[in-house]
Amino acid sequence: MMSTNEEKKLWGGRFSENTDAMVEQFNASISFDQTLYQEDIQGSKAHATMLHSIGVLTEEEHQKIQKGLDEILSEIKKGEFEWQQSREDVHLNIEASLTEKIGDIGKKLHTARSRNDQVATDLRLWSIKTIEGLSSDITSFQKILLDVAERELETLMPGFTHLQPAQPITVGFHMMAWFQMLERDYQRLQDCKKRCAISPLGSGALAGTTFPIDREMTAELLGFSAPSANALDSVSDRDFVIELTSALSLVMMHLSRMSEEIILWSSPQFDFIELPDRFCTGSSIMPQKKNPDVPELIRGKSGRVYGHLFTLLTLMKSQPLAYNKDNQEDKEPVFDAAFTARTCLQLLSHMLAAASFNKVALLKSLEKGFVTATDLADYLVRKAIPFRDAHEIVGAIVKHCIEESCQLHELSLETFEKFSDKIAEDVYEFITLEGSVGSRSHIGGTAPKAVLDAIKLSDQILEDRLK
Amino acid sequence: MMSTNEEKKLWGGRFSENTDAMVEQFNASISFDQTLYQEDIQGSKAHATMLHSIGVLTEEEHQKIQKGLDEILSEIKKGEFEWQQSREDVHLNIEASLTEKIGDIGKKLHTARSRNDQVATDLRLWSIKTIEGLSSDITSFQKILLDVAERELETLMPGFTHLQPAQPITVGFHMMAWFQMLERDYQRLQDCKKRCAISPLGSGALAGTTFPIDREMTAELLGFSAPSANALDSVSDRDFVIELTSALSLVMMHLSRMSEEIILWSSPQFDFIELPDRFCTGSSIMPQKKNPDVPELIRGKSGRVYGHLFTLLTLMKSQPLAYNKDNQEDKEPVFDAAFTARTCLQLLSHMLAAASFNKVALLKSLEKGFVTATDLADYLVRKAIPFRDAHEIVGAIVKHCIEESCQLHELSLETFEKFSDKIAEDVYEFITLEGSVGSRSHIGGTAPKAVLDAIKLSDQILEDRLK
Amino acid sequence: MMSTNEEKKLWGGRFSENTDAMVEQFNASISFDQTLYQEDIQGSKAHATMLHSIGVLTEEEHQKIQKGLDEILSEIKKGEFEWQQSREDVHLNIEASLTEKIGDIGKKLHTARSRNDQVATDLRLWSIKTIEGLSSDITSFQKILLDVAERELETLMPGFTHLQPAQPITVGFHMMAWFQMLERDYQRLQDCKKRCAISPLGSGALAGTTFPIDREMTAELLGFSAPSANALDSVSDRDFVIELTSALSLVMMHLSRMSEEIILWSSPQFDFIELPDRFCTGSSIMPQKKNPDVPELIRGKSGRVYGHLFTLLTLMKSQPLAYNKDNQEDKEPVFDAAFTARTCLQLLSHMLAAASFNKVALLKSLEKGFVTATDLADYLVRKAIPFRDAHEIVGAIVKHCIEESCQLHELSLETFEKFSDKIAEDVYEFITLEGSVGSRSHIGGTAPKAVLDAIKLSDQILEDRLK
Amino acid sequence: MMSTNEEKKLWGGRFSENTDAMVEQFNASISFDQTLYQEDIQGSKAHATMLHSIGVLTEEEHQKIQKGLDEILSEIKKGEFEWQQSREDVHLNIEASLTEKIGDIGKKLHTARSRNDQVATDLRLWSIKTIEGLSSDITSFQKILLDVAERELETLMPGFTHLQPAQPITVGFHMMAWFQMLERDYQRLQDCKKRCAISPLGSGALAGTTFPIDREMTAELLGFSAPSANALDSVSDRDFVIELTSALSLVMMHLSRMSEEIILWSSPQFDFIELPDRFCTGSSIMPQKKNPDVPELIRGKSGRVYGHLFTLLTLMKSQPLAYNKDNQEDKEPVFDAAFTARTCLQLLSHMLAAASFNKVALLKSLEKGFVTATDLADYLVRKAIPFRDAHEIVGAIVKHCIEESCQLHELSLETFEKFSDKIAEDVYEFITLEGSVGSRSHIGGTAPKAVLDAIKLSDQILEDRLK
Repeated sequence: MMSTNEEKKLWGGRFSENTDAMVEQFNASISFDQTLYQEDIQGSKAHATMLHSIGVLTEEEHQKIQKGLDEILSEIKKGEFEWQQSREDVHLNIEASLTEKIGDIGKKLHTARSRNDQVATDLRLWSIKTIEGLSSDITSFQKILLDVAERELETLMPGFTHLQPAQPITVGFHMMAWFQMLERDYQRLQDCKKRCAISPLGSGALAGTTFPIDREMTAELLGFSAPSANALDSVSDRDFVIELTSALSLVMMHLSRMSEEIILWSSPQFDFIELPDRFCTGSSIMPQKKNPDVPELIRGKSGRVYGHLFTLLTLMKSQPLAYNKDNQEDKEPVFDAAFTARTCLQLLSHMLAAASFNKVALLKSLEKGFVTATDLADYLVRKAIPFRDAHEIVGAIVKHCIEESCQLHELSLETFEKFSDKIAEDVYEFITLEGSVGSRSHIGGTAPKAVLDAIKLSDQILEDRLK
Repeated sequence: MMSTNEEKKLWGGRFSENTDAMVEQFNASISFDQTLYQEDIQGSKAHATMLHSIGVLTEEEHQKIQKGLDEILSEIKKGEFEWQQSREDVHLNIEASLTEKIGDIGKKLHTARSRNDQVATDLRLWSIKTIEGLSSDITSFQKILLDVAERELETLMPGFTHLQPAQPITVGFHMMAWFQMLERDYQRLQDCKKRCAISPLGSGALAGTTFPIDREMTAELLGFSAPSANALDSVSDRDFVIELTSALSLVMMHLSRMSEEIILWSSPQFDFIELPDRFCTGSSIMPQKKNPDVPELIRGKSGRVYGHLFTLLTLMKSQPLAYNKDNQEDKEPVFDAAFTARTCLQLLSHMLAAASFNKVALLKSLEKGFVTATDLADYLVRKAIPFRDAHEIVGAIVKHCIEESCQLHELSLETFEKFSDKIAEDVYEFITLEGSVGSRSHIGGTAPKAVLDAIKLSDQILEDRLK
Repeated sequence: MMSTNEEKKLWGGRFSENTDAMVEQFNASISFDQTLYQEDIQGSKAHATMLHSIGVLTEEEHQKIQKGLDEILSEIKKGEFEWQQSREDVHLNIEASLTEKIGDIGKKLHTARSRNDQVATDLRLWSIKTIEGLSSDITSFQKILLDVAERELETLMPGFTHLQPAQPITVGFHMMAWFQMLERDYQRLQDCKKRCAISPLGSGALAGTTFPIDREMTAELLGFSAPSANALDSVSDRDFVIELTSALSLVMMHLSRMSEEIILWSSPQFDFIELPDRFCTGSSIMPQKKNPDVPELIRGKSGRVYGHLFTLLTLMKSQPLAYNKDNQEDKEPVFDAAFTARTCLQLLSHMLAAASFNKVALLKSLEKGFVTATDLADYLVRKAIPFRDAHEIVGAIVKHCIEESCQLHELSLETFEKFSDKIAEDVYEFITLEGSVGSRSHIGGTAPKAVLDAIKLSDQILEDRLK
Repeated sequence: MMSTNEEKKLWGGRFSENTDAMVEQFNASISFDQTLYQEDIQGSKAHATMLHSIGVLTEEEHQKIQKGLDEILSEIKKGEFEWQQSREDVHLNIEASLTEKIGDIGKKLHTARSRNDQVATDLRLWSIKTIEGLSSDITSFQKILLDVAERELETLMPGFTHLQPAQPITVGFHMMAWFQMLERDYQRLQDCKKRCAISPLGSGALAGTTFPIDREMTAELLGFSAPSANALDSVSDRDFVIELTSALSLVMMHLSRMSEEIILWSSPQFDFIELPDRFCTGSSIMPQKKNPDVPELIRGKSGRVYGHLFTLLTLMKSQPLAYNKDNQEDKEPVFDAAFTARTCLQLLSHMLAAASFNKVALLKSLEKGFVTATDLADYLVRKAIPFRDAHEIVGAIVKHCIEESCQLHELSLETFEKFSDKIAEDVYEFITLEGSVGSRSHIGGTAPKAVLDAIKLSDQILEDRLK
């Protein structure tokens, strides 16, 4: 609910005329910053406790304020609170409502505080909460990837570079690559969270306040690690919003890559994966269509989050200190970026958990592309041929196969010998798919053994994380 | 109103299970593409007329469809239409409602059409309408600029380069610079409109249709200049959306520059302009503040529109033909970009019309910065000193003035003569502010005479435009 | 060659100390703005002619300046000109060299001119020239597309939406979709060129000049359509640079889409196209690889040009008028964007001309995906079944086929009849690939007849353009 | 030096024709990736040592390779190495040269390695080195800020919000705000460095290698913290490049804000700061100009780095795994971003160290804007008036002052009493500038005492860092 009752502005003392109606609407942020209501009340409660501790509020005043704020929180949660556009933003809506509830005492709450430090506090609390939600989404996705990886530990598939078959790998190994992308996202978000967890409360408008406030106390009450070091910086700093959106851009970039692969794999040309019907939609005109809408939309939404990042970078470019109204534009982008990333993480992971890999088609596709050519070259190196020469010999063999429309393992030993007399009967062991995959068994390699080790290690990491 | 009733999907024939609820919400575009309801109905009406003309619909069927669509239009306008998320988008909501109204005949409307060409048609119609609205906003702004320019034709102010006073100019001249920026925006939008005005209707899903449709007829009925030339391209093309958002980014860039200047001019350090109270707001903590919120927000919103442009460019990067679901992400950015630009154009022009320039402060500021130094150099050139030498002589004179803390016109003739014996008594005429400004009287110059000519010419352009 | 000799700055009159060496290097633009040497000399020659016409230069002075500038042009072309970093930019390098050549007369050239209008003039001349080059590259590419389209007029291929086979189309039809993308790029560049073709020369530093200059004369001599209308705007306007880079971003977006398709088509999973070896490279480790490097790099380079666009938009955001040094950053992005786009246009078109389509593989791929399902639905509509019902019947048939692992045309008439008694023996004609393609014969459709008409029309457009 | 001799490609075995000349030039990265020559040789030396340790290279082979690589390093440093475009990139140039030097043994170096893991290794080593350089630049800048802050600890200046005077602060306090921005940049870069310090070497083309390599050994030899966990991910991951460029975008955003302030402060309208002549330049036409070119260029260059970030994000969007040629486009943006940021950090800090603040002008500017109005409101709160009421009373007093053209401290006690009977003689102490500033003495406040504490703490941080 939104009302636009005319009422006196809380800052209106020096003004001769009321705000123009269109301007009021333009300036108001209440349509989107009400998202911050919990953080705003949380911050006000901590501020009131501190004001009480330094003697600015009496015990009774303090109790009334706490009670009033709790009531407002409850009303908002129940949808009974009436937001008013004429009260501009979440801060003034809540403060004005408090004064309606508890009278003049409510007017004391804003002592030793400005909306500049208040909104920075709210947004930092929101960012911390959001990072925690994202971390949980990422961890759930990673758990699913470990399950799929274990299930498909030995499922062979072609590994591509340049979208050309390169070497045989396993689906499990591929899933663990995705796991690593998400692991970096997780780590980046934790680093970002450290920088969110600094309390700007007490910075006032830009220079601090003349009251003997206790900034450590409010920082601690709100779960911040420390008060910020400079008030001027604190009210103008939006680094944490940009850093968060930047981390989310990388999340979405990763999801766009996974989505691209799933779209490719769902195409009959690849036919590597079958998505469950409930994650797909049809066509209004073509009755046979089953479209991978979810990964397509996720791929598209990467642009959305990138755009938000550039909105924020542009916003802050060349702003003089300290707070400028431009900064009101910081919220919608980061709110939408976080919502988008969380939704996409959840949907993609659910879809993946329910998808199935087509082992037959995957195996069939390994017949194309001479994927064990590197193994043949490595075989020659073991027979004392320098790698570059081995590479050249195998290149010639492949060219021969293309001309003869056959595969490497279909060549006779005589034919092999024409290209190099170092090739012997044992070559056939090395150029099988299983041989190729199994031999890459060092850390990070595609061999099922190595992948299983990686899964176990990763499983432990996730378990430790959840402790 | 939004309902999520379970109902059979219009494309569900080949599917074994219903869409996952979260997927349905994720895929649905109805929350934002309902913006297109007028265009969608307009397009369907034209399509029905054409289907009738080629014999696919009987006269009676045609009449029923037209009447049904008119009723739906009326319901939506009155807020009585129930949008359903389970019906995904504006197209299926309207089509399903039509069938509820008129029975099986409604199911014939989608003959020889796909949502792919339908949405492209809708979005092009919307773009044309939006460009017309933007053009009108720009023209109104330009009209205000002409008024202010005429009013302040002879109001002197310092012209800056590098934010250093450079040469004296007039406020009228400055307003006409802003006029020119907007004029280019206007022209760019007209060029963009030409490219919007191509009808994709009849392109079907991607290859056209097997029905003998008359694409010229629908193009003409909808006010397009011609049918598109290739169906595959038509359903995958979003150039016009990007081109429009790109033109809007330039609009916002211009508004950010004007806003920056207004913010500077409102600062007591400049004190060039006084904004009306009703366009400003105060501070929650500092009782003396009167903040130029409107230009600050506009400056900030440039980032918002830039972000939308990059969202769209990223969206289309490396998409294979033809339509992919990613493209559903094309609407929100361009809708918001257009809304933002229109609001900002309207607000900034209204604010400017109501602002007043502080003639006294402007004149006082001209005492700083030796703004007639170029005139002195030009004077020397007229006395046969090569420009580069004249420039150097005047540089030395200015250095002398800085050391002596005086202005150019305060120097005695003797002092002048120490720097060049070509300087005579007539020098003082050339280095007055009025002399300086008045002498730049060629096309595009700052002389009031030249600016008045420019105003008259521009006035004529706007009048011709509105004819 | 670049020299950093210490020498007196041409603007040094008022300064007490020399420029710091690191600052000099930082400020200097000569490493990249020497690209503009032709335009700079062209502009100076026109300016001199005008100065002569208004009596500022004598006939002799004029002749010496023209001759001196011609000599410098010739030296630069031969690589004999010594660019000096201490002379900052292309303008001062050429002017200082002129004065070395012809003495004090050279110092008169800069009368009634500033570097601010000079560089804007140079950059606009360069933009016009660049657009002409790009237009020629695009036209050549389009010509090749017409050739390929004609050659592959009847080559069947699956048309995709959502990367799922949708309907059968032809390669010729697909090529004509690419043609249309480029056609829009061409038109956009012509519109941009109109806005480049305005002469800023005579705008001086920001306010015009005190000399009675003839701006129409220089505009005409330089091939501009008119002098600019406001000096302040003229020296601060970089719209044309952004508009050009924006048009180039769309060019690159198109090339990224074509590249994506070529990369997909080159993958053995698709195997639709064979690229000539000379456009591909191999792997340092995998001897069998033949990688489509050219389209991959082009796809990647779309990001490069997008980035330049964002650089320019950020650059101009909230700059107060008139010229600020920031603007020196306008050149490298647009120079590189144009170079990149031109190279990519040339390479991709050459590669395409030399590539061959695999007719057999294309045909084979049409067996997957029930691509004539829409034709079957349309068939039912002709038998008086409403489209939506027809769609549902065909959906059920497709589901049956998937379960039975067969294609539509392999179903017996009895089976068909189980789904709808309107299906008769004639259904088989409608669901052949040739029947499907041939029947989409309206404007923009995929039927060879319609595509041939489009080719002829397009051919005529290109011919008219080259006249 | 760059040569384009025709020679056999190292991967040419399967190819039928040579690379097209234009393609060769397009594909070659040697013009920019030679930047990585040190890292490439460093990586090869570690790889060779490891190959020796597992028996792939004999002791003699190993020694020859080490010696050959050292010679090449020395040649490159001396400028005696001949880079060849036909050898594509830094890797093949160095490897081919090694083989020329030491014969067939050189061909063994690439055993168990691919260019895919090689280039990722090089780029990570370069990123680590670059972050160390940046960290040093930032620390130096911070040191200068501490010096200036201490020097100007008590220099009063107006603090602005919305570019309106808000409250009095000190220059020292303002410098410490800048310090904090840079401190976050420093911390972000250290976090990024952790993620760079993972060794991809041994990942091969995408799946690892069949040789029993020791990835921990190479990781340790190269100073990495660990080998990477998944080969497929390792060769396709460019997160670290994006994260670095993202951190650099924030650095540049900060520098753009500082630059904006310096530009404002240098304007005669503010006149807060005097930049040394050697950091400024003049005008080619206006002899009096002294332009703050350095901060203007830095402000402009923020766009450059933002653009690079967008280039990289676009580049990676929706790329399927593993390596694609697109990724070659990763280097130029990050190289230029790092170079730009380092240069700007160095120049801005040097300029600031040499600039002087105009105490007189700063003090004079404090007379405008009623900067102690908040102190007056706080005074009333201490007299038991609720903050919101106090705010309103002071608003009315300010309005009175504006009408009477006077300052707060110029009002008589009688006048004060008309607005509130709580105001007494002691009010004058609270509304002096010194009183206002001195009373904000909590952590992060502007009081000289608080700022001095902050300086000492920061000094300690920098000292600990350099240990």
